[in-house]
Amino acid sequence: MAKGEKSIGIGLCGLGTVGGGTFNLLAEGQKEIVRRTAVDIKIVQVACLIDNPACDLSHVKVTRDVFDVVNNPDVDIVVELIGGTDLARQLVLAAIAQGKHLVTANKALIATHGDEIFAAAQQRGIMVCFEAAIAGAIPVVKAIREGLAADRITWLAGIINGTSNFILTEMEEKHRDFDDVLAEAQRLGYAEADPAFDIEGIDAAHKLSILSSIAFGVPINFDSVYTEGIAKITQQDISYASELGYRIKHLGISRLTEDGIELRVHPTLIPAKDMLANVNGAMNAVLVHSDAAGNTMYYGAGAGSKPTASAVVADIIDVVRHMDSAPEKRTPYLGFQAESILDQDVLPIEKVRCAYYLRVEVLDKTGVMASISTILSNNLISIEALIQKEASEFLNGLTKAHVPIVIITNRIVEASLNKAIAEIEALDDINGEVTRIRVEALEGDHG
Amino acid sequence: MAKGEKSIGIGLCGLGTVGGGTFNLLAEGQKEIVRRTAVDIKIVQVACLIDNPACDLSHVKVTRDVFDVVNNPDVDIVVELIGGTDLARQLVLAAIAQGKHLVTANKALIATHGDEIFAAAQQRGIMVCFEAAIAGAIPVVKAIREGLAADRITWLAGIINGTSNFILTEMEEKHRDFDDVLAEAQRLGYAEADPAFDIEGIDAAHKLSILSSIAFGVPINFDSVYTEGIAKITQQDISYASELGYRIKHLGISRLTEDGIELRVHPTLIPAKDMLANVNGAMNAVLVHSDAAGNTMYYGAGAGSKPTASAVVADIIDVVRHMDSAPEKRTPYLGFQAESILDQDVLPIEKVRCAYYLRVEVLDKTGVMASISTILSNNLISIEALIQKEASEFLNGLTKAHVPIVIITNRIVEASLNKAIAEIEALDDINGEVTRIRVEALEGDHG
Repeated sequence: MAKGEKSIGIGLCGLGTVGGGTFNLLAEGQKEIVRRTAVDIKIVQVACLIDNPACDLSHVKVTRDVFDVVNNPDVDIVVELIGGTDLARQLVLAAIAQGKHLVTANKALIATHGDEIFAAAQQRGIMVCFEAAIAGAIPVVKAIREGLAADRITWLAGIINGTSNFILTEMEEKHRDFDDVLAEAQRLGYAEADPAFDIEGIDAAHKLSILSSIAFGVPINFDSVYTEGIAKITQQDISYASELGYRIKHLGISRLTEDGIELRVHPTLIPAKDMLANVNGAMNAVLVHSDAAGNTMYYGAGAGSKPTASAVVADIIDVVRHMDSAPEKRTPYLGFQAESILDQDVLPIEKVRCAYYLRVEVLDKTGVMASISTILSNNLISIEALIQKEASEFLNGLTKAHVPIVIITNRIVEASLNKAIAEIEALDDINGEVTRIRVEALEGDHG
Repeated sequence: MAKGEKSIGIGLCGLGTVGGGTFNLLAEGQKEIVRRTAVDIKIVQVACLIDNPACDLSHVKVTRDVFDVVNNPDVDIVVELIGGTDLARQLVLAAIAQGKHLVTANKALIATHGDEIFAAAQQRGIMVCFEAAIAGAIPVVKAIREGLAADRITWLAGIINGTSNFILTEMEEKHRDFDDVLAEAQRLGYAEADPAFDIEGIDAAHKLSILSSIAFGVPINFDSVYTEGIAKITQQDISYASELGYRIKHLGISRLTEDGIELRVHPTLIPAKDMLANVNGAMNAVLVHSDAAGNTMYYGAGAGSKPTASAVVADIIDVVRHMDSAPEKRTPYLGFQAESILDQDVLPIEKVRCAYYLRVEVLDKTGVMASISTILSNNLISIEALIQKEASEFLNGLTKAHVPIVIITNRIVEASLNKAIAEIEALDDINGEVTRIRVEALEGDHG
């Protein structure tokens, strides 16, 4: 070790995709990290259930028990990459009790137990870093908590689940069906064998609840996130959206309004020219609107071994830089001083204002269109765009008598839309349910 | 002041566009800043040549002499927003000598005197922050120095001059001419009365030299940046580029190669589907490729009063957080420890490898095309794409006998291209010079 270098001991818990990537990045990147920090960061112990063949463990202590790592006096920083919320919570709280600083990539843990963990850590003056929990390699936690520290953030919107974005991109670009692309995503390892967390939006909801908290200085409200996945999106809707100048993306959106905080994850039509609309494949991006900076966006790989390890190791370097600082001088866990975190109501989805894409199949277009228009108008909903096709253009799946009508509405309160849809579905000449997808024009929206 | 809050004194030098924005943001954002930092950040003195009518100066000491601010014992942090390089350099060095920390938005100052300033500051344990100097509101300095601290960065490319991007966007979208859009940009205040810094690429070269330094850990090499502006870009080239699936953007590109560092600012054809290609108007974006994170991109407003003030005040908050830390624990000025900054050769432009867009007007297309092909082939240059139009399609400006030929080449060393172009221009049937624009497929390039 060169003159002036110090050594910091890392205890690595978990050696799966992200753990293995972190192990190897610390080994391969060591020279560059010393160039930046003048500190020698050394893995002193690894806990894993099975060895990872991609990692050379010959020079490191390996244990099967994560608590061995927590109790190892040579460990200064515990890196929690075991996933899940039960054992991970115990591990993290035990590490805090031992005075070890923490780095984690575990969004479920922070979204569900963050408040408890941060309170315990604050009492002991312990750092807890979680950049890797949100949008993988993208330093968006740092951007929001530090880069925009002078700003009042008013809303943010993100493509924060790579699997959903991969599926929607393939469906759009290659005209493939949802089930077909999902099966491929599973083969490629993007989606878990049980893909529910990804495609039902739960993973995105975990991340959104954390982003919302660090943006607005509110508690983490995972239980209040309105969550809708992508399973109902069809080729037909993607194609109509495109005809209207939109693309369908699975977004997490949080917005500060006078009546409360919007916190919602759902498929969304956004203008095809928007930056977010051009985020394709498994890539992630978070667009943030704040009063001084305006729109800023952060883009990159949202998952994967090396990209996530990049964020984990950057967090380790952050801990090394700040572990000796007075705790009150460090950036607070959620970006705001604990006593300044203000609980605000989360707006129920029925009270959220949004524009909508509606698709309805009608039997006799002339007469029904008049009825639909009347219902919308009676509910004070206006039609901003409309597609009506001749029956002959639509043969696939529909009988000639079924004609789709596609409508984009103005911005309205969801409760009004629910009422209008119920009335439309009660009409005699309607086939099946009304399809609805929310529409946002974020990049032009400076509210 | 609430319990536990400390007060930090700011000396604000310069009250123009950015200075005025900073003054007002500190006033309006004070409550939110206290929520984040528990520190009361107060402007104790302002130096300006004329008062800014947008700022209420009634509760602050105002001086015409910036050195009054430097010598004011109540000032903890000097914020240099006077611009220029001579007085600004004296001011900054005097502040360092007085033990004041520094925040600046001055890219010309850092690009030309950064090494001297950082050396002086390091001796005194002084912080010097310059997030606002590059890409306005976008926290890209923080992203590179801290967010990607675990990564080896291999290249970066950015749209880092809003005026040039505004002009190119207007030319493309509205089919307007360069001079016409430039005049509007001047009316709108995007471009200075003397727009040379912007449209000749000097402003972008300042920023690129700093970005390259913090990405690779090399000295700031402003004098070695190859710099080309946008004045020669025509409607015709924008339209051919579009036909070939490209857009023309003014990029700053720096890349680490085995033979040295590429450091170049020039108009560039990039695939129309790339994220960078969709950065429009006065917006900026920096795309970074690193070994672990892969491609990450940072997007936002690159200039303007409030966006730049957002970065200035975020830097002030960073200083407040780290001014009491041990200097060796802080993120180094250029992201790397001073003794680890390695001087590397900057590759002369003749040695840079690039693909090229070539446009040449020929008198007799059949015969000349064969000659051109032979010249390219003899210089080991291959044709990746080609547009040849019938003479009758081209009447504007050209006589019927003049036919444009547009070629995209493979990636070749610039010296070979220079030789080929000289040979082509020596042909009898060529009208005028060969137009050349570099082509990069950055987002698919993981080298």
